[in-house]
Amino acid sequence: MVRTGVIGYGYWGPNLVRNYMENDSTELTYVCDLNPALLETVKKRYPSVKVTTNPDEVFNAEDVDAVSIATPVYTHFDLAMKALQAGKHVLVEKPMSDSSEHCEQMLEEADKRGLALMVDHTFPYTGAVKKIQELVKTGDLGDVQYFDSSRINLGLFQTDVNVLWDLAVHDLSIMEAVFDYHPISVSATGIAHVEGSPVNTAFMTLFFKESFIAHINVSWLAPVKVRQTLIGGTEKMVVYNDMEPEEKVRVYDKGITVNPSPENVYKMRVGYRAGDIWVPKLERKEALRELVAHFTDVIENGAEPLTSGISGARIVRMLEAATQSLEKQGECVSL
Amino acid sequence: MVRTGVIGYGYWGPNLVRNYMENDSTELTYVCDLNPALLETVKKRYPSVKVTTNPDEVFNAEDVDAVSIATPVYTHFDLAMKALQAGKHVLVEKPMSDSSEHCEQMLEEADKRGLALMVDHTFPYTGAVKKIQELVKTGDLGDVQYFDSSRINLGLFQTDVNVLWDLAVHDLSIMEAVFDYHPISVSATGIAHVEGSPVNTAFMTLFFKESFIAHINVSWLAPVKVRQTLIGGTEKMVVYNDMEPEEKVRVYDKGITVNPSPENVYKMRVGYRAGDIWVPKLERKEALRELVAHFTDVIENGAEPLTSGISGARIVRMLEAATQSLEKQGECVSL
Amino acid sequence: MVRTGVIGYGYWGPNLVRNYMENDSTELTYVCDLNPALLETVKKRYPSVKVTTNPDEVFNAEDVDAVSIATPVYTHFDLAMKALQAGKHVLVEKPMSDSSEHCEQMLEEADKRGLALMVDHTFPYTGAVKKIQELVKTGDLGDVQYFDSSRINLGLFQTDVNVLWDLAVHDLSIMEAVFDYHPISVSATGIAHVEGSPVNTAFMTLFFKESFIAHINVSWLAPVKVRQTLIGGTEKMVVYNDMEPEEKVRVYDKGITVNPSPENVYKMRVGYRAGDIWVPKLERKEALRELVAHFTDVIENGAEPLTSGISGARIVRMLEAATQSLEKQGECVSL
Amino acid sequence: MVRTGVIGYGYWGPNLVRNYMENDSTELTYVCDLNPALLETVKKRYPSVKVTTNPDEVFNAEDVDAVSIATPVYTHFDLAMKALQAGKHVLVEKPMSDSSEHCEQMLEEADKRGLALMVDHTFPYTGAVKKIQELVKTGDLGDVQYFDSSRINLGLFQTDVNVLWDLAVHDLSIMEAVFDYHPISVSATGIAHVEGSPVNTAFMTLFFKESFIAHINVSWLAPVKVRQTLIGGTEKMVVYNDMEPEEKVRVYDKGITVNPSPENVYKMRVGYRAGDIWVPKLERKEALRELVAHFTDVIENGAEPLTSGISGARIVRMLEAATQSLEKQGECVSL
Repeated sequence: MVRTGVIGYGYWGPNLVRNYMENDSTELTYVCDLNPALLETVKKRYPSVKVTTNPDEVFNAEDVDAVSIATPVYTHFDLAMKALQAGKHVLVEKPMSDSSEHCEQMLEEADKRGLALMVDHTFPYTGAVKKIQELVKTGDLGDVQYFDSSRINLGLFQTDVNVLWDLAVHDLSIMEAVFDYHPISVSATGIAHVEGSPVNTAFMTLFFKESFIAHINVSWLAPVKVRQTLIGGTEKMVVYNDMEPEEKVRVYDKGITVNPSPENVYKMRVGYRAGDIWVPKLERKEALRELVAHFTDVIENGAEPLTSGISGARIVRMLEAATQSLEKQGECVSL
Repeated sequence: MVRTGVIGYGYWGPNLVRNYMENDSTELTYVCDLNPALLETVKKRYPSVKVTTNPDEVFNAEDVDAVSIATPVYTHFDLAMKALQAGKHVLVEKPMSDSSEHCEQMLEEADKRGLALMVDHTFPYTGAVKKIQELVKTGDLGDVQYFDSSRINLGLFQTDVNVLWDLAVHDLSIMEAVFDYHPISVSATGIAHVEGSPVNTAFMTLFFKESFIAHINVSWLAPVKVRQTLIGGTEKMVVYNDMEPEEKVRVYDKGITVNPSPENVYKMRVGYRAGDIWVPKLERKEALRELVAHFTDVIENGAEPLTSGISGARIVRMLEAATQSLEKQGECVSL
Repeated sequence: MVRTGVIGYGYWGPNLVRNYMENDSTELTYVCDLNPALLETVKKRYPSVKVTTNPDEVFNAEDVDAVSIATPVYTHFDLAMKALQAGKHVLVEKPMSDSSEHCEQMLEEADKRGLALMVDHTFPYTGAVKKIQELVKTGDLGDVQYFDSSRINLGLFQTDVNVLWDLAVHDLSIMEAVFDYHPISVSATGIAHVEGSPVNTAFMTLFFKESFIAHINVSWLAPVKVRQTLIGGTEKMVVYNDMEPEEKVRVYDKGITVNPSPENVYKMRVGYRAGDIWVPKLERKEALRELVAHFTDVIENGAEPLTSGISGARIVRMLEAATQSLEKQGECVSL
Repeated sequence: MVRTGVIGYGYWGPNLVRNYMENDSTELTYVCDLNPALLETVKKRYPSVKVTTNPDEVFNAEDVDAVSIATPVYTHFDLAMKALQAGKHVLVEKPMSDSSEHCEQMLEEADKRGLALMVDHTFPYTGAVKKIQELVKTGDLGDVQYFDSSRINLGLFQTDVNVLWDLAVHDLSIMEAVFDYHPISVSATGIAHVEGSPVNTAFMTLFFKESFIAHINVSWLAPVKVRQTLIGGTEKMVVYNDMEPEEKVRVYDKGITVNPSPENVYKMRVGYRAGDIWVPKLERKEALRELVAHFTDVIENGAEPLTSGISGARIVRMLEAATQSLEKQGECVSL
């Protein structure tokens, strides 16, 4: 039984709380939020849970083994460090922190104390991403060639982070789960249409040492909601459309053929082939439910974390580098 | 009556020939191609038309007022220059030429001799693009904010030009027709998956001095055919899906609202609004038919050309700069 | 303040209970269900509400003005009659009852006692149906010509009623809300694929004295979920696709033109015309919330009920006649 | 080499002529049409073909082995009978004739003389229908349970036949090709919105002695073009959407499970199961090209005709009976 405290009961906290309550291997002991009105709601819904406006109370509690942090990004570092220093395992909301330097310190602290440190990226726990991961890892797609994602809609403009930190972060977590490749540099471009507001429309290219490229298109200013990712492989190609209620993943038996050109031995002739399409049935469990169960498994049984702090830190480094590239109008930044 | 010769009867030439034959204001007098077998086909279908394998014969012919060039890109400059020097009006297949320097010389020659020089970009003549142009020019969209286009499919790999010259060229011609803005610099990234073959997947961002950005995603290596363009304006937004048989243009009464934040006078609070969607009925005429009629009108009546050589040269400059940026992994290149 | 009791806490009851709790003009005083375990859930969630396994306790309660009945169809008549006889206003789950004769008795009882008797058909309270109703009533569609609906999916086979009573009932309630016309006869065909199980796939045509026809296609045995209704008018046509998350209602400026034929004075030449498409923004309130508020308004202010018992009884008569026609393989049955 | 004459060069005739010209096993010798202007077009395009306004000239010609009849329905019988009596094989446009009695006489005549008599139903020759046929015949779908088709659009109103003869005829030809079952009776309903014009919107149910049902929804008065057919089987289900450019056939691994109910031994408990979806690649050959080749094969090699006169006559009988049922508002008519 993992006894848990949740810090932050705003947008995401209630989902964490609900899932901890429903999981039989966890016991939710504390909820902390600065807003007493929100704590009143908690008390009504879950009378057994202790509430407080002071996070230190959670960190110092004897009946807390693990802490989940669902507060604004800029507070992640301080809260997670305090929790780790108090000997608690930590699950921190995505992105892991506001800088890669902070992430490194968090990793060091967790490592030194032998504590679990995970990031709450939910996409890798969805049936769709798990299926894509399987298709890539088993080699069904052949050698992967590209990842190209659009994640756009008419969305609430964040005030503290640009659109990459808000939306591209999901694609980066999917890539971390699906591919063994890690990018070596990044180029990003974008625009802030509202003065004083962060970049709201951005395009990001990730370069790899392999024959592979990734591109992510994100925006808060699109008239339609698009959540579409194309993954090309030498054998098969995947279209992952998260807006589809049922048929999120489509596998195309399509690709190119490369043969020596009969006219010119130095040139390759590129053809293409097309076969059937396959829409696999997907697992339908709630991603956060899976994540909470997995976090418990990591703590109790030392399971290999799927969305580890190490991976979360790599993602923050990508976002940081992309933000630097944004300011230099696409100039490539090394990772 | 404009007497016309067509040079090149490969992929696009037959379409030009057919449209010249069907237009009552033009008389097709010559067709030229290096392949005698193709000329045999012409003779059978159009016995009244003279055929030759020698372009000079067309340039020197008395009964030719205008020449249409539908040959590979690297031959455009030589053929167009000869035609202009022989006093013929010129319509040249897109892209106008393989370098902006060549384009400049072509423009100079045409200008010096008072001849029409147009580029065969067909998209601006479609009902869809004309409708979008109207929505932008009348101010219905408000101030335009972005242009974001995807033009991907499993396509034949070109051997001489990269995918930008093959596909992004269409988006650039649409932008030239629709907007008054001109880009000041460009960043492009991409990958060549087949050794010795040009870049087959590329992403291009165009920067403007206005609060406007353009992004173009092109690929020959996608499992699905996508032809989708989003155009955001402060009043309305457009989704142009060229794969739709009927409803290509959708106008969304959506956008953001920007108000001073009550908490912080230095910050703006961004909200959003959503209203009806409108799918206007579009003209259904063949674009090339319109282009041929317009070329005649330019020659005979001095009409302002919609896809002028000046615009075509700007497009080549953008492709050239994007190709330079590609090699520098996204570093911005000035136009 | 209308004090309410809810009978039945199975599939639909919890939705009723939640909406009564959230409505400021109603006070939920009782919940009744035969299953004590379900009542335990009610007590936990809503400690202020009294619970009982005996419906008579609700009917006899002083602090109950109105009763909502969300039990199996065959129990509607008995429960509603008792409630009315006890002087309570009644909202009964759809379909109103299992026979038109029962409906008539319920109407009589309510009428005699001056009590409200409404049926819980929710579709007429949705933003989509309200918009269609507006388009028809204002004459925007012109004279309506047909209603053609498909409501199919892979669904749980009911054991007591055929698929018409389960699914076509929704379409009939939409027609009641939208049109002034009432059918005069009905033809229905269908099949029961599982021995001993009711008809699971059925097709129903409704005839009218006006130049109007309605057709409803329902099935529990389709691989895809379809919820699509076409409504034709002489001026405009509507496609209502309830599976669309946002764009449920599309209005087509399309139709036919009828002119005397130049060749034959006794014949009409029928042409067609096509214009713009319009996708109106819809109200997004929960239908049941609107229904509960409306029921209160009917009780307190004598408002004209939108889904009255009179209309509910007509719908039951249509289902009854359709079931008779089913047995006669499509032979028309008068209403 | 089969020497062929085509009677009728209106809407469909030119397609037949083109396919006969392109087929290496046929020689087109004659084209006949009452309109001399159309024959002029033929002469220009195909100088080697003889033209005439008199069908008897074709029937009496020595260099004609087979005749294709692409004239209005009411003329099929006379022309086909004359052709057969002159010893020519016959391919007749669909529907085969205007009455089942006429069809019987045609069959008798062909049979007596040992001549091929086929109907030009093209759908059975498409890649989509061939794939569905294969899925049914191999038993992949299990026992088929239903066929449910919608074939609606804003179409030209015919003046001589109702919408069933114009559109449902396609579905009936698909059923003939795909299933071994034959209907035993039919119920049809519909409406004629324009006075003096035939029924333009109709719904048709076909009954079988097997546990199978078919339903066809056709209309010339719909705002959208729908060509969708659902075919249910006990193992798998098919959705055939002919409007899809690429993915016309989708195979769903879905269905119901039927188990004895634990509560009631006389009742079955019906559950459902859902698995993957599969979109097979389809042949892309032109259907009419296949039909022409097949007709030649039938004549020369005595191949079993896919769209035989016998099948065509059954289809006419179904249309005839459906038209009778239409007049009786859905009353079932035996076949």
